[in-house]
Amino acid sequence: VMDLTHEVEPGAIRSAAYLLSTAWGYYPTGTVHTVVVDPGVGGERAVLAAEAGGHRFVGPDNGVFSEVFEDRPPERVVRVEDDAVFLKPVSRTFHGRDIFSPVAAALAGGMDVGELGPVVKEWVRHERPRAAADGAGGLSGEVIYVDRFGNLVTNVRGAEVPAGAVIEIAGHRVAGLRGSYDAVGRGEWLAIIGSTDRLEISINGGSAAAALGVTVGQPVRVRPSSEKGSA
Amino acid sequence: VMDLTHEVEPGAIRSAAYLLSTAWGYYPTGTVHTVVVDPGVGGERAVLAAEAGGHRFVGPDNGVFSEVFEDRPPERVVRVEDDAVFLKPVSRTFHGRDIFSPVAAALAGGMDVGELGPVVKEWVRHERPRAAADGAGGLSGEVIYVDRFGNLVTNVRGAEVPAGAVIEIAGHRVAGLRGSYDAVGRGEWLAIIGSTDRLEISINGGSAAAALGVTVGQPVRVRPSSEKGSA
Amino acid sequence: VMDLTHEVEPGAIRSAAYLLSTAWGYYPTGTVHTVVVDPGVGGERAVLAAEAGGHRFVGPDNGVFSEVFEDRPPERVVRVEDDAVFLKPVSRTFHGRDIFSPVAAALAGGMDVGELGPVVKEWVRHERPRAAADGAGGLSGEVIYVDRFGNLVTNVRGAEVPAGAVIEIAGHRVAGLRGSYDAVGRGEWLAIIGSTDRLEISINGGSAAAALGVTVGQPVRVRPSSEKGSA
Repeated sequence: VMDLTHEVEPGAIRSAAYLLSTAWGYYPTGTVHTVVVDPGVGGERAVLAAEAGGHRFVGPDNGVFSEVFEDRPPERVVRVEDDAVFLKPVSRTFHGRDIFSPVAAALAGGMDVGELGPVVKEWVRHERPRAAADGAGGLSGEVIYVDRFGNLVTNVRGAEVPAGAVIEIAGHRVAGLRGSYDAVGRGEWLAIIGSTDRLEISINGGSAAAALGVTVGQPVRVRPSSEKGSA
Repeated sequence: VMDLTHEVEPGAIRSAAYLLSTAWGYYPTGTVHTVVVDPGVGGERAVLAAEAGGHRFVGPDNGVFSEVFEDRPPERVVRVEDDAVFLKPVSRTFHGRDIFSPVAAALAGGMDVGELGPVVKEWVRHERPRAAADGAGGLSGEVIYVDRFGNLVTNVRGAEVPAGAVIEIAGHRVAGLRGSYDAVGRGEWLAIIGSTDRLEISINGGSAAAALGVTVGQPVRVRPSSEKGSA
Repeated sequence: VMDLTHEVEPGAIRSAAYLLSTAWGYYPTGTVHTVVVDPGVGGERAVLAAEAGGHRFVGPDNGVFSEVFEDRPPERVVRVEDDAVFLKPVSRTFHGRDIFSPVAAALAGGMDVGELGPVVKEWVRHERPRAAADGAGGLSGEVIYVDRFGNLVTNVRGAEVPAGAVIEIAGHRVAGLRGSYDAVGRGEWLAIIGSTDRLEISINGGSAAAALGVTVGQPVRVRPSSEKGSA
């Protein structure tokens, strides 16, 4: 049993979907991934179990699997209805304990996903926000995750950023891509292609999120070069 | 080795006692539970080792086992005096490292609780705060735990709350019990019977603790219905 | 796989070096210790692998091993250059994932440190700050770590503190050494020799760091007794 993270903000389904999509592939085939970011626990939302890429996934049908299943369309998704392995009584507020974990343990112990309930073809999908051409040769994107260092991870892929690009966010401009945080002085801004192949905006030794007071959803513009004029 | 939590506030013995009582039973028989919430480390307080319900417990004699031992009277409690397995020198400030962990490891490795010291019949017990009838058909209770989402867990048991009850806390009223957080709109208040069968006061998608500015010990009243008049 | 801590402040190399030096010896011989406090990731700093005292160490050449290697001069230190075991592509911002962890796994799986790259004799060393005689029979030291309780750990060793010493920090005085936190009343100040044999300044049941508003680097003076006059 390994804990991937306990640092997802309460109810932050999109952050959970992003983090899961960046991490699951580093675990060995056969791993059962359990997600307990579940603000609708006890309500109408279904419980899903799935197989994708040789891994298994268990959690609420609230969009937490959106990014994994977009990257790796699942071979099978079922709505968990057989309560034989649930801990009882099932509480109203903690299905991570009473449903997801015992289901995950059953799968890890050899149970087949198909034994848990009927196959479904629809589940909650949150479209991954994509950067779009802005009509002036640049891109409009947004911040999709803020890490614990305050780095601003955007939805702009590495290949979409020209070497001489100028990045604009919250009235602030950062010119060019750097190869490491310490390619600029301590306390200075930089743009870098981060560990998930996305454009990130950072301060060497500081928190870009705190400095700008921005969070997930903040618009970001990428201009091909500083010669293109101002916004 | 599993970490149950590192989120107990420093020195919060009652929170530790509550969390331990809600979790120990989900571990397999034979588990050794070690508690290091120990504000009196190095002072006069004794070290306890115990057997209860097929589990073993190691930690300071400061009340952290109050709730477990109330629910499951221990078969045997000893005061740990034999320092043969301690790490030496024993520091003044970190018995979790120098005493509790090596004692727990010795128990996990087959040592009998009785080898560690004399049986004791008395230990520090913090009476679990109980909700009491208020003489008007209702109950007076209190907040006993605040979870990381800001939900206010009270000492009122699920069976004590009538379906139409009105809950009063810090001048705020919540009417009726809900079956899930999302049974009310986002940002709205609700009362729910939580995962440890206790009345909880919550905000869907928010923090009730932050909204009211209250913490452990805050009084809570449960009235049978809204027809009973005001406080 | 055990996580020692995720509570090192971002980029706090000296805190990491201190914590590693206090913990590594409690793990069994053969352990591979991986350190990912790495503010210069992706830049010029090298990657080190080493053997010291029957343990192995993997991490950035930025000083995080300064204290371990001062206490236990390493038998062998190599600059990791063979990228055969790296995860590829190696990202610019997360060598903990792409380099340190797979190298550590290879060592744990039987690879010899010598297979990873050339032996080096120089690496980044941060001199451990030492308390110094102040010319008046006392010592001048400093705070080297603040723990999660707000205790102020200094670089003054236990044997350097006379029983009747007066400790001065940020205009505040604490007289004498105590044997436990609760040797003083709740909310009162005390000095104590902590679990790493260093002088610590604490408040029983409170945070000395918050009360004084001080952090790592704060000067501390130890005077032999209160008879020596004021600062």
